[in-house]
Amino acid sequence: MAENLVPLPFDPAGIQLDRRQGLSRQLYQALRARVLDGRLGGGTRLPATRDLATMLAISRNSVVRAYDQLYAEGFIEGRVGDGTYVAQLSQTVSSLAKLSTKVSTALPTGLPTALSTNGINFTVLTSSKIIHNSAMERLQHYSLPPPKSGPPRAFRVGVPAFDLFPFDVWAKLQAGFWRKPDLQQLGYGEPAGDPRLRELIAAYLRGSRGLSCSAEQIVITSGAQQAISLCAQLLLEPGDVVTVENPGYRAAGNAFAIAGAQVQGVAVDNDGLDCTELANIENCRLAYVTPSHQYPTGVTMSLARRLELLAWAERSQGWIVEDDYDGEYRYSGAPLAPLAALDRQGRVLYVGTFGKIAFPAMRLGYLVLPRQLVPAFSQRRALDVRHSEVGTQVVMAEFMAAGHFQRHIRRMRRAALSRRNALLAGWPVDIPGCGALPNVAAGLHLMVPVDSFARECELIELAEGVGVEINALSDYWLPDSREPVDNRAGLVLGFAAVAEAEITAATARLRKAWVE
Amino acid sequence: MAENLVPLPFDPAGIQLDRRQGLSRQLYQALRARVLDGRLGGGTRLPATRDLATMLAISRNSVVRAYDQLYAEGFIEGRVGDGTYVAQLSQTVSSLAKLSTKVSTALPTGLPTALSTNGINFTVLTSSKIIHNSAMERLQHYSLPPPKSGPPRAFRVGVPAFDLFPFDVWAKLQAGFWRKPDLQQLGYGEPAGDPRLRELIAAYLRGSRGLSCSAEQIVITSGAQQAISLCAQLLLEPGDVVTVENPGYRAAGNAFAIAGAQVQGVAVDNDGLDCTELANIENCRLAYVTPSHQYPTGVTMSLARRLELLAWAERSQGWIVEDDYDGEYRYSGAPLAPLAALDRQGRVLYVGTFGKIAFPAMRLGYLVLPRQLVPAFSQRRALDVRHSEVGTQVVMAEFMAAGHFQRHIRRMRRAALSRRNALLAGWPVDIPGCGALPNVAAGLHLMVPVDSFARECELIELAEGVGVEINALSDYWLPDSREPVDNRAGLVLGFAAVAEAEITAATARLRKAWVE
Repeated sequence: MAENLVPLPFDPAGIQLDRRQGLSRQLYQALRARVLDGRLGGGTRLPATRDLATMLAISRNSVVRAYDQLYAEGFIEGRVGDGTYVAQLSQTVSSLAKLSTKVSTALPTGLPTALSTNGINFTVLTSSKIIHNSAMERLQHYSLPPPKSGPPRAFRVGVPAFDLFPFDVWAKLQAGFWRKPDLQQLGYGEPAGDPRLRELIAAYLRGSRGLSCSAEQIVITSGAQQAISLCAQLLLEPGDVVTVENPGYRAAGNAFAIAGAQVQGVAVDNDGLDCTELANIENCRLAYVTPSHQYPTGVTMSLARRLELLAWAERSQGWIVEDDYDGEYRYSGAPLAPLAALDRQGRVLYVGTFGKIAFPAMRLGYLVLPRQLVPAFSQRRALDVRHSEVGTQVVMAEFMAAGHFQRHIRRMRRAALSRRNALLAGWPVDIPGCGALPNVAAGLHLMVPVDSFARECELIELAEGVGVEINALSDYWLPDSREPVDNRAGLVLGFAAVAEAEITAATARLRKAWVE
Repeated sequence: MAENLVPLPFDPAGIQLDRRQGLSRQLYQALRARVLDGRLGGGTRLPATRDLATMLAISRNSVVRAYDQLYAEGFIEGRVGDGTYVAQLSQTVSSLAKLSTKVSTALPTGLPTALSTNGINFTVLTSSKIIHNSAMERLQHYSLPPPKSGPPRAFRVGVPAFDLFPFDVWAKLQAGFWRKPDLQQLGYGEPAGDPRLRELIAAYLRGSRGLSCSAEQIVITSGAQQAISLCAQLLLEPGDVVTVENPGYRAAGNAFAIAGAQVQGVAVDNDGLDCTELANIENCRLAYVTPSHQYPTGVTMSLARRLELLAWAERSQGWIVEDDYDGEYRYSGAPLAPLAALDRQGRVLYVGTFGKIAFPAMRLGYLVLPRQLVPAFSQRRALDVRHSEVGTQVVMAEFMAAGHFQRHIRRMRRAALSRRNALLAGWPVDIPGCGALPNVAAGLHLMVPVDSFARECELIELAEGVGVEINALSDYWLPDSREPVDNRAGLVLGFAAVAEAEITAATARLRKAWVE
């Protein structure tokens, strides 16, 4: 009978069960491991559930559940009227061995030799096997430094006064949405984003930013970074030339680089991007710019340069990606109209974000696109992520519709101005090797030139020593920049991240560390 | 004096202001438009603010604000002691004309001829100018159909019983998080996702899904789609061959295709993907599979096939992307262990999602990665989107830690089972041209074979006529599939989207439409 076919008697003695945890899962795992490593060969007859329960001193139910799971997953099989057997996996695998053209033979020592009896060794991929792939190689060159962690402190860059965000209002709106959500909104939504939010953003841009656009041109993104990354993936062929401001926003340059573009830096002077240099770059398909407030130098692009840049885009049929990351912050008069407001040729893709008005971790941004690009961007977004998370979109729409957003912009502008003033007032005079503070008419950060790399490094280390965070201008240059080395040094300070008292305390510590 | 230099007298007569709206913004826009279209030439002297205010019968303040904005944006300039003049933009632009190599001369009729006097015509990009770009061309071939909109109805595919989601609990957790958020979490976070959520997901997969993994292997994504899309962008070179199940999940195949892969379909039989066919495909780098519950046929991949697939991956150093989109739904016993649980070579990338337990619009999913791939995936995600929205991650972590998640899985499994039973009970018998209902042991949908395309189309139209949504199996095949046409027809029905009564009513309507 069947018993005669069993190659090994089944010995449950090695099965150790921990009675404080799920017994059937442990038994399932123990049996599965024995099938996979060959200790229980194909065709082995398993004991009846009642017998195994007695042997292991557990309930029969636990054994039944373990067998059921092994059966469902194909590790054991039942023969009608004849008990339970280990499945004939080795036949499957040994028939595979004949097909196999490239069987790895080396086994790392110390690893269990799984299924090795039938000619196929399962090896663990060791770290010495490097993954060769151009996408991953590009990433190694263009990855971003880890984000600055810990609570906000002076003078973290890229962070608004989010301690002033009306969290109580946001919490109420979130709770209101989730308590009784419209079930229609919980399935798969529009790739371009929530229609009401898109309407409200378009109305805001028309009314407050002088940008004539309609809801159909808006595509919601997961922050400005996804907007830039979509541009990189959709507007470029591998090998295309992209120009970025130098010094500039490295996360944008890197997004273009990992999409396969050749990224070239173009100098920035007091009028913004040097458009003559741009015009001399051959086959440039796309220029990435921050015209309202250049990142990180703080320069505003002049009108003449804006018109030159637009003329370049038309001549060369190139694209302009305008990243207006902090355009809401202007300390005299209304915010400047974006470059996109001057675009009559449909060459400017405008990137906006809520990250600098609300907080970065909201990951809510948008593109305003030339109409002919909208379908492609929507479709690409559908394949990348389907769409953005529903709650943030619906709650932001409500936040805007109820007037909280406009109020909050005014609050944030006042706060940033007051924090800027605290920095200007407390900034040490006559720091050796350090230039004068610039005029700060806009944005959330400023840049102070420093005489040399060595001094830049020294000032930043001294600041770090007294708990003050300052970025090095040298980190914003492309690696192959041709500027004389000592023209590239400077300090980049964000002035909005913490309250005035903390800024004053930080500048006092800097004075001690740097000057006294 | 200066008046003699003015080429045109400034005539404000054409400026129409609507007194119900912001006057300074209207004046700013009117003047800006005149500068840009040449009606106000460079060097034109503007009236003093007091005089213009009188002429237009508005307050002097409104004129001052408009002038300030025009000044800030560079449209006008002040000469010390000598009033306000239109900036010399035409000089900038005409000097540009000399650099210009490719000046467009044709102007679409009916469009304003902007700045045409200085040799550069701004043309509007018309729809006839097609964008030539391989990324966009691929998108035209591989875009997704728009999502099914409107409230959930019988028998929408891909949608769980999200009417049963504990929205009250979720609303409370959301409000709790937002009322007093940890400010540290509101800046830029970890690209791989919230550390606590990653810990909890790893613990869940170890405890409930038999997948041995640690938090470091988890990368949070914006739903399963972003997980698949990341695999496409990181593991492939353009031109690499990718195999997908055929019929299968088109959104996955399309994500691979737009990354530049050659997508080839492999047949699915009652044991899942045909691994012999896979082994015969040359240079295949990646296989995308749904082993727990094949999408859309509902087949579970047999253990023998799982081992064959893993052996293929090791032999060819290929990657397996395992999409376990609805693995939590199994109607007898525990969920099957994923393919990734058998992987000892680090070749399987496991894709999980909260979309089928909570709701799709949450856009929360994750990858479980072989350790050596984690840095590249994190870095890529940082450049794509920085990281996922913070609130959803933190609240889901709390939802899991408090036991709501496990409770909800049980609730959803019971509900789906009960809804499945309502469909099986109400399904019309003897539908002409339609095969038998399958055995439905898992998942949220089922597939019924139909004799021919013509009949498939007819049945779906008749269903639509009585308000019942059914997907065509033919839509899940790759366009170039070689199967005999009439083997490819079938009905795909999601049974979880609506409650039992609605299912029963829908099957009654189908019976009338199809059989009686």
